[in-house]
Amino acid sequence: MFKAVLSDSNILKTSFDAISSIVDEVQMKADSDGLRLDALDRSHITFVHLEFKSALFDVYQCDEPLKINVDTEELMKVLKRAKSEDIVELTVDEGNFILTFENEARRTFKIRLIDIEYEAPSPPELEYPTEFEIPFSLLKDSIQDISIVSDKIALIVDADKLIASAEGEFGDAKIEYLHGEKITENAKSVFSLEKIKEMLKADKFSETAVLKLGNDMPLNLSLKMVSEEGELTFLLAPRIESEE
Amino acid sequence: MFKAVLSDSNILKTSFDAISSIVDEVQMKADSDGLRLDALDRSHITFVHLEFKSALFDVYQCDEPLKINVDTEELMKVLKRAKSEDIVELTVDEGNFILTFENEARRTFKIRLIDIEYEAPSPPELEYPTEFEIPFSLLKDSIQDISIVSDKIALIVDADKLIASAEGEFGDAKIEYLHGEKITENAKSVFSLEKIKEMLKADKFSETAVLKLGNDMPLNLSLKMVSEEGELTFLLAPRIESEE
Amino acid sequence: MFKAVLSDSNILKTSFDAISSIVDEVQMKADSDGLRLDALDRSHITFVHLEFKSALFDVYQCDEPLKINVDTEELMKVLKRAKSEDIVELTVDEGNFILTFENEARRTFKIRLIDIEYEAPSPPELEYPTEFEIPFSLLKDSIQDISIVSDKIALIVDADKLIASAEGEFGDAKIEYLHGEKITENAKSVFSLEKIKEMLKADKFSETAVLKLGNDMPLNLSLKMVSEEGELTFLLAPRIESEE
Repeated sequence: MFKAVLSDSNILKTSFDAISSIVDEVQMKADSDGLRLDALDRSHITFVHLEFKSALFDVYQCDEPLKINVDTEELMKVLKRAKSEDIVELTVDEGNFILTFENEARRTFKIRLIDIEYEAPSPPELEYPTEFEIPFSLLKDSIQDISIVSDKIALIVDADKLIASAEGEFGDAKIEYLHGEKITENAKSVFSLEKIKEMLKADKFSETAVLKLGNDMPLNLSLKMVSEEGELTFLLAPRIESEE
Repeated sequence: MFKAVLSDSNILKTSFDAISSIVDEVQMKADSDGLRLDALDRSHITFVHLEFKSALFDVYQCDEPLKINVDTEELMKVLKRAKSEDIVELTVDEGNFILTFENEARRTFKIRLIDIEYEAPSPPELEYPTEFEIPFSLLKDSIQDISIVSDKIALIVDADKLIASAEGEFGDAKIEYLHGEKITENAKSVFSLEKIKEMLKADKFSETAVLKLGNDMPLNLSLKMVSEEGELTFLLAPRIESEE
Repeated sequence: MFKAVLSDSNILKTSFDAISSIVDEVQMKADSDGLRLDALDRSHITFVHLEFKSALFDVYQCDEPLKINVDTEELMKVLKRAKSEDIVELTVDEGNFILTFENEARRTFKIRLIDIEYEAPSPPELEYPTEFEIPFSLLKDSIQDISIVSDKIALIVDADKLIASAEGEFGDAKIEYLHGEKITENAKSVFSLEKIKEMLKADKFSETAVLKLGNDMPLNLSLKMVSEEGELTFLLAPRIESEE
């Protein structure tokens, strides 16, 4: 028996909007602690980790651990139909993941469960020299700024600032943000803009992003709900830049 | 002499937005009672009836019955140019249907009258076992919900509920709405979603839709203005489903 | 040394949105009086003149006259990234036009300066028989109205009214606006709608447009800031209509 009831549908919509851009299918694991999902995109460049603790839900019941394997595009089609004021109920039957949106009417969607052969990957454990917070909207803007001149972005951290920059044929762009942290070790990595944009769809998950950066290390972008009952983390492999 | 003045342009815009999706050309009939229009789409699947009583208009004058034949796409192009605050005046001259939008400026549009050989069809008289109201927005949502899994929709009425449902290859959808009527006879019919969507453009005509349903009977979707001075009714032929 | 700081980025965005539709590249001239730009489109149909007086800027410094030559499309890409609340700073270095948007973060864009061989043209001096004001939104609406029936527009002025009109195959459109001026000489000219639409992108520059019209003379459309510290003027050559 699995049943989870949530009064805020936006948290599901926003996280799966980002996830469905990155991976075609996912394995969600439910147990008494909550729901979690770990996935790696086809090109092994982006890793995504989503976690909803049982306390996040208004009602949460999971008698024995189960795996819910779905096509993310199909799931997203259904989630887009949820309205902010809908009460969302998640259950499973033998062959379907069932989402019910309750309000003026009761709207039930069944999404076929799919076969996923492999085990969901585990997130790599990495030690980062720098970590700081940045308003999510500012991060999103910076990425859009950079994309008018280039298709890659350098993220650089020094003692005072986070710098996003790119040089293009017709112009350059540079965004400087005072991070306010005591960072002693500088870091610089270059990433694909296209990949980084996929993550930014999760913009209603949290107003603040926690970034972890190192030298030619993956970008760790983590969104935490205020209540700490949910977390969405992305890991993006750096581009290897040849010296010019 | 025909002249009709209306202070709310939305009622014209919303009804013709739906009508122009269904029929390419229409014959409006004006007489001292008001304006009416009956039309049948090319494939004889959707019948549309529109009626504006003379009392709906701020000024209404029609000395002798006349027919106004226009291309609905051309009419819609003009109606889209009306703003909510515009006073709309409808007249005809020998070869044109004339719409004037008056506000800060006086904007006059003439649409060429066209030849329509046939007489406008009469609406079929049908006796329905069930009839009930549903918020128009909820009906619209349900149709959108269904369209993510299928291109057809089953509309089912039982003693308590109106059920819209569809089964697709990748998922199912079902919407249940408590209609609050004393309905003794169940009904079920299946319709094409594409055709039903055309009707839903009329969403500013009325907040409430009156549905009439039977077993494998046409859907009768009627929108009535609060004042009862205007009515827009659609009849949609059911799909004949082979038993599986 | 050139430096100009502006607290309202919309004025730059809206003017260059129109300009970049008309000309591919521009030469801006900066001196102690301010910034000015004169340009002629490739087909020599539209002339554009933009002027920002030094007093418009919060900070303005220009030690010696200089020319800033840029691709308007690249400039517009950058200006679109400015937000209303950003403080905009304009400077130049040896090879770039530099725009800095300052707010929560400091975002710097460098646009490559380009070679422009020719001297910027001077605006033609024309004497107009008629001149009057019209709300910019109404002018914009009229142009949209006309475009549903034709691709050209006749602008006619008589003692009382400005009339915009066009006759098309499927319909006619006519917009009459009482100009409230004492105009003694009638005027009529016909213009290309496509060209006139390009100018209308400048809609946040001023709420009022000043039109100057004559018989088969260019349209002079001028937008003046309330403070008179900035001006954007378009001149559009008339279409020569053969007598029918």
